Amino acid sequence: MKDLTVYKTIEITGTSASSIEEALNQGIKRANRSVKNMSWFQLIETRGNIVKGKVHHWQVTMKIGFALVDADEK
Amino acid sequence: MKDLTVYKTIEITGTSASSIEEALNQGIKRANRSVKNMSWFQLIETRGNIVKGKVHHWQVTMKIGFALVDADEK
Amino acid sequence: MKDLTVYKTIEITGTSASSIEEALNQGIKRANRSVKNMSWFQLIETRGNIVKGKVHHWQVTMKIGFALVDADEK
Amino acid sequence: MKDLTVYKTIEITGTSASSIEEALNQGIKRANRSVKNMSWFQLIETRGNIVKGKVHHWQVTMKIGFALVDADEK
Amino acid sequence: MKDLTVYKTIEITGTSASSIEEALNQGIKRANRSVKNMSWFQLIETRGNIVKGKVHHWQVTMKIGFALVDADEK
Amino acid sequence: MKDLTVYKTIEITGTSASSIEEALNQGIKRANRSVKNMSWFQLIETRGNIVKGKVHHWQVTMKIGFALVDADEK
Amino acid sequence: MKDLTVYKTIEITGTSASSIEEALNQGIKRANRSVKNMSWFQLIETRGNIVKGKVHHWQVTMKIGFALVDADEK
Amino acid sequence: MKDLTVYKTIEITGTSASSIEEALNQGIKRANRSVKNMSWFQLIETRGNIVKGKVHHWQVTMKIGFALVDADEK
Amino acid sequence: MKDLTVYKTIEITGTSASSIEEALNQGIKRANRSVKNMSWFQLIETRGNIVKGKVHHWQVTMKIGFALVDADEK
Amino acid sequence: MKDLTVYKTIEITGTSASSIEEALNQGIKRANRSVKNMSWFQLIETRGNIVKGKVHHWQVTMKIGFALVDADEK
Amino acid sequence: MKDLTVYKTIEITGTSASSIEEALNQGIKRANRSVKNMSWFQLIETRGNIVKGKVHHWQVTMKIGFALVDADEK
Amino acid sequence: MKDLTVYKTIEITGTSASSIEEALNQGIKRANRSVKNMSWFQLIETRGNIVKGKVHHWQVTMKIGFALVDADEK
Repeated sequence: MKDLTVYKTIEITGTSASSIEEALNQGIKRANRSVKNMSWFQLIETRGNIVKGKVHHWQVTMKIGFALVDADEK
Repeated sequence: MKDLTVYKTIEITGTSASSIEEALNQGIKRANRSVKNMSWFQLIETRGNIVKGKVHHWQVTMKIGFALVDADEK
Repeated sequence: MKDLTVYKTIEITGTSASSIEEALNQGIKRANRSVKNMSWFQLIETRGNIVKGKVHHWQVTMKIGFALVDADEK
Repeated sequence: MKDLTVYKTIEITGTSASSIEEALNQGIKRANRSVKNMSWFQLIETRGNIVKGKVHHWQVTMKIGFALVDADEK
Repeated sequence: MKDLTVYKTIEITGTSASSIEEALNQGIKRANRSVKNMSWFQLIETRGNIVKGKVHHWQVTMKIGFALVDADEK
Repeated sequence: MKDLTVYKTIEITGTSASSIEEALNQGIKRANRSVKNMSWFQLIETRGNIVKGKVHHWQVTMKIGFALVDADEK
Repeated sequence: MKDLTVYKTIEITGTSASSIEEALNQGIKRANRSVKNMSWFQLIETRGNIVKGKVHHWQVTMKIGFALVDADEK
Repeated sequence: MKDLTVYKTIEITGTSASSIEEALNQGIKRANRSVKNMSWFQLIETRGNIVKGKVHHWQVTMKIGFALVDADEK
Repeated sequence: MKDLTVYKTIEITGTSASSIEEALNQGIKRANRSVKNMSWFQLIETRGNIVKGKVHHWQVTMKIGFALVDADEK
Repeated sequence: MKDLTVYKTIEITGTSASSIEEALNQGIKRANRSVKNMSWFQLIETRGNIVKGKVHHWQVTMKIGFALVDADEK
Repeated sequence: MKDLTVYKTIEITGTSASSIEEALNQGIKRANRSVKNMSWFQLIETRGNIVKGKVHHWQVTMKIGFALVDADEK
Repeated sequence: MKDLTVYKTIEITGTSASSIEEALNQGIKRANRSVKNMSWFQLIETRGNIVKGKVHHWQVTMKIGFALVDADEK
């Protein structure tokens, strides 16, 4: 029954050389390989490293919520 | 007199399928239909929903400040 | 088109002599008289006053989000 | 019945060339033109602009709570 | 030796149509199916959705701490 | 003169096996044995312990404000 | 030995009809009647009540730190 | 009955010339002279003063929780 | 071109025996001796020391933003 | 390709009878038994329990970030 | 020796008419003219001004960390 | 006159392979080479990197306050 759905939240950091959106998409894409039923995300922090005076990578940390459906919510 | 201007802040959430900037622009565009004299914004939160392992919509919540000019600041 | 829905958030404080849930419900019930399309709430703060050593009223402050649909989102 | 009063909170920024108190009073004075039953305020942020090395204006952002009494709480 | 116990914290969201306590209990009940040795919880956020002007579901997010005992703390 | 009343705030944690409200009431009831003139409370944190996969106790931390009336406000 | 001084912090709210500074001074003046060796303060929150569209009282909450010197640090 | 224990939290700052741990221990040692039944602590802030380019004292502020047992919880 | 102006923020603490405003003005006045193009400030924290039961000094910490114009923005 | 590495963050609490550093090291040592590629940590909270007026255990909560490399990032 | 590197953090606000990423890049580009060895950034705040109902400029505030290498870290 | 002293705060990150205290001392020692009159510090964040399952370096970020005495406070 959907009304009693329980969700778990995990925290993931995606990286990209070009944009915040791409870094976040990378994180979700990778999480999708092992977490099913992802439902929402929340951007938590945007950091990055600088090489030779320019942004080298964007590092975007997000929380991802997904429904726990069977016995494997760990 | 501009020096004594009073501002009101409202909180709006705009949505977009493609980027944070577009979601924020959507929110401001819609607010512009009924709020005049908008002066600044502040991005408060970036969330979104995920469908089939991909970002479906970006939901960007912003505060918008605007000058109260006549009697209708509510 | 639902995808481009814009939401507004307002902040309401409901009161109750008995519980947090009832105070929140009171706030939403009252907001419903003038705000349509309410979609979600977030509990922000729980305070209250004390009279003769006992809780007299619970004061629950919540944010309420609702979709802006026509020209009257102010 | 007073016990079930519902309050709404708005966020206002008042300005003054001389003090934090005056900026806050300006904000409340202006809000009073269209919001009735104001009950409390909370100072949220104190900013200002600087011109020629001196404070030009204080900008004081406050939350204002007021009782919703009839059908017009928007 | 109990003195050197290491704990892991996970973040869960439980839902209920009636109360904050029930939503939290739902989250813990579900987590108990795959996490053993749960020791404490902390309520992080209380949100919910609104349907037809009334609270439809309470969504309570909690942190849950549990002792890592064997090799499966992931 | 009531206008110049000074208040002190203390932080108390009440416990209950059944609900947040009862845990808070327990804290206020106990504080009432030695603190007079309690005026307001603010819920600060809701935690609890878990035994055998179920909530054993709710631990609700609150701030309590009370008026200082004589010489014994310590 | 001064190097090992231990301090206690208490939280006090002072009120004033005219300014933030006076409200804070009221709080410290009152605390001085029962707490000795006060050393520093930190302004925590500025609130107030509104009567007939004007600030009626400023309520300034502060933390006050004082050295514990003998056996009476309660 | 232990289940209904009520706790009070106080805020103490301990000092030490050598380490964070020692400063915290100093604070607890001093508090122990007048507060009984101390149960837990939480480190809140680590500050210190600098003399001649070196740390002179560590100042560690902690919250300490203790059970209220008789009539003297003030 | 004004559109691409870059600003730097510094953090300053001003002191005064009489008011928050004067302490902040002192900080800005002193900063003006070596920083040009100051544009805005934000009040961050208000603390102070207490001597003989009275406020001795107000210590107001502010952020100050100023435009970087030539090669000396360090 | 290192540029597109995705990281996951978990939250662990380590304990020690002697120091913050040892408690943190305990947490990382235990996590290392099941999580590979740990890259960084962030200290989140330092708490502890008190027995007979002395610190009995330090409880240090940390976030640990590690690279997701194969299919097992859960 | 790299192990003992000390870093300094500065706070910069970059502006752009088009995107968050460009505003941040502008800030880093400008900082690079006088600060060497920049190593990382953290996005702190995203604000902007609105002209005629549209975003005129994005103002992105970031912290930038850089290694102190010689005698000129001021 | 000491009463009107103005302070500036900078943010520094020190590193150490062994302890939080040493990392902080390293940061202050390095800052002392170019900043005079340092007066206080506040620990802001404790992070670190992990190599082969063990803490490799502690990275302690602190704020340092120092008095501005002549014309060189930048």
